[in-house]
Amino acid sequence: MLPQFVTVTEVGPREGFQYEGARRDSPIALADKLRLINALAATGVPVLQIASFVSPTIVPQMADAELICQQIERGPNVAYTGIYLNEAGLRRALATQALDIRGELMLSASETFALRNQKRNFGQEIIAQKGLATIYREHGIPVDTCNIMAAFGCNFDGAIPLERILGLIESATQIAAEEGGGALRCVQLADTMGWANPEQIRRTVRAIRERWNDLAISLHLHNTRGLAVANVYAGLLEGVDRFDTAIAGLGGCPFAGHSGAAGNVATEEVAFLCQELGIDTGLDLVALTEAARIAEDVVGHPLPSQLVQMRGSNLTLTRRGED
Amino acid sequence: MLPQFVTVTEVGPREGFQYEGARRDSPIALADKLRLINALAATGVPVLQIASFVSPTIVPQMADAELICQQIERGPNVAYTGIYLNEAGLRRALATQALDIRGELMLSASETFALRNQKRNFGQEIIAQKGLATIYREHGIPVDTCNIMAAFGCNFDGAIPLERILGLIESATQIAAEEGGGALRCVQLADTMGWANPEQIRRTVRAIRERWNDLAISLHLHNTRGLAVANVYAGLLEGVDRFDTAIAGLGGCPFAGHSGAAGNVATEEVAFLCQELGIDTGLDLVALTEAARIAEDVVGHPLPSQLVQMRGSNLTLTRRGED
Repeated sequence: MLPQFVTVTEVGPREGFQYEGARRDSPIALADKLRLINALAATGVPVLQIASFVSPTIVPQMADAELICQQIERGPNVAYTGIYLNEAGLRRALATQALDIRGELMLSASETFALRNQKRNFGQEIIAQKGLATIYREHGIPVDTCNIMAAFGCNFDGAIPLERILGLIESATQIAAEEGGGALRCVQLADTMGWANPEQIRRTVRAIRERWNDLAISLHLHNTRGLAVANVYAGLLEGVDRFDTAIAGLGGCPFAGHSGAAGNVATEEVAFLCQELGIDTGLDLVALTEAARIAEDVVGHPLPSQLVQMRGSNLTLTRRGED
Repeated sequence: MLPQFVTVTEVGPREGFQYEGARRDSPIALADKLRLINALAATGVPVLQIASFVSPTIVPQMADAELICQQIERGPNVAYTGIYLNEAGLRRALATQALDIRGELMLSASETFALRNQKRNFGQEIIAQKGLATIYREHGIPVDTCNIMAAFGCNFDGAIPLERILGLIESATQIAAEEGGGALRCVQLADTMGWANPEQIRRTVRAIRERWNDLAISLHLHNTRGLAVANVYAGLLEGVDRFDTAIAGLGGCPFAGHSGAAGNVATEEVAFLCQELGIDTGLDLVALTEAARIAEDVVGHPLPSQLVQMRGSNLTLTRRGED
């Protein structure tokens, strides 16, 4: 059941600059952001999420999104992406002409989280996605992906019924076909507030597969309550082969309603787990641990990844055939 | 396949005082050690490993083992245990008359680790176990458990063949019957240097079960390379229902040959994982997070557990039936 190859999207810059920026008195300097992004481009990561196009009034630490896109040194074989929550953001991202913009919708499984993070109720969420889909269509980008935030639970709304996830996928399928002129090919489930447990991951993946057996599933997991690596393993056991990860465990969400460290699952931890399970990722563990140390230097404090202080040699020494 | 109840042995005091003591200029005060042990006794943990009876010359931070045993405030329904690597240590532990001494053997799956940690080669290891078994017998304690250190890999010797684990269990079975006057009922596999991966855990448990289907299996997992919680989940999937854990992720081994943070899997993380999977542990998560903060206070620096800074309410709020 384990996949042979796992594709990682590195979201550390976007998640990290957004979250760390909200915790600091002074912004992270543009030069430091570029330093981390450029180091990550040399780790073998195929997709690098570098900015979010959100209100500079509400999220001033991301006001330099356009400058980041202009000034990075582009690595070969790296796709650079960003996120946005509304039409204005998508238009800004498109205007950079520097990003690999994909036809992605973005829905929340929790209405309270949607109201806090996107300032929209469930109905407004659907309308907003139709708006995004229309813009994608104007630009010849087929809508093929839907991200579902707070898919496994919410600090405000509590447990999320699995039926709601299935309903959101159904809505996204319809929007992709009607307004987006495409077809939904991938759903990303985001455990925004770190509520998922391994069995829940497996149940959810199975339920989606039962209904849409050709839909790819991607997982975006936060380590808020320490279960992220176990949740990745649970996903792998169900054949999930796409994960968002963040170098050194950067990240968290300023609107998630808790104060504990709450980063994404660390890229180097996922890369190491995959290596140990014999799954190829194309990632270079030594380069990842170097980038992880740059990440700590850039944010100015230790980051939660267990591997961040490891010398790369301590991670590659266990690589072996059958034991 | 998941067990209904998991029994946790809290090894944080023994592991933590031993490892932290080796990193400090000044010893951890006896009063601080007692404060942590007494807090742990109120968490619902059924077994509490509080001291090691090893050479005070080589491990001076454990020289107060007897004082600890005498001065703790004994909680109800808590068994207090210690460890020892040779006859002198076992005799010291017995002499305290304060510990629940069980008939445990202690073998290393890595010869280099055995030479460094126990100052014995493989042959001397077997002879030493026969010596321990004889003492147990004198005291009417049946030998029923064997701990295997470095069972999943070694920083010095690399991969450990599964056949070696099976061979060690065979030796222990023989010693338990011949010198120990008992029968082996439990084998504990210790991932002393954090080499295990989830699939390896599953293969190893299955191989042991295939040969000795009534032998209980216990896991002692270090988080050196970030996989400990995933490894616990892998054990649970195979029905393993006994784990050693350490509050806040205390621990590490001074003789393990690496400098990175390398504690045991955190008690509160295992308790939380079990809660989320619907497995009873008898542990109180709020009391555990309080004890975790005492552990940080006692050692004087942050500890690696992801949950150590969580308010207990953030851990219990996700408790729920079916989602």
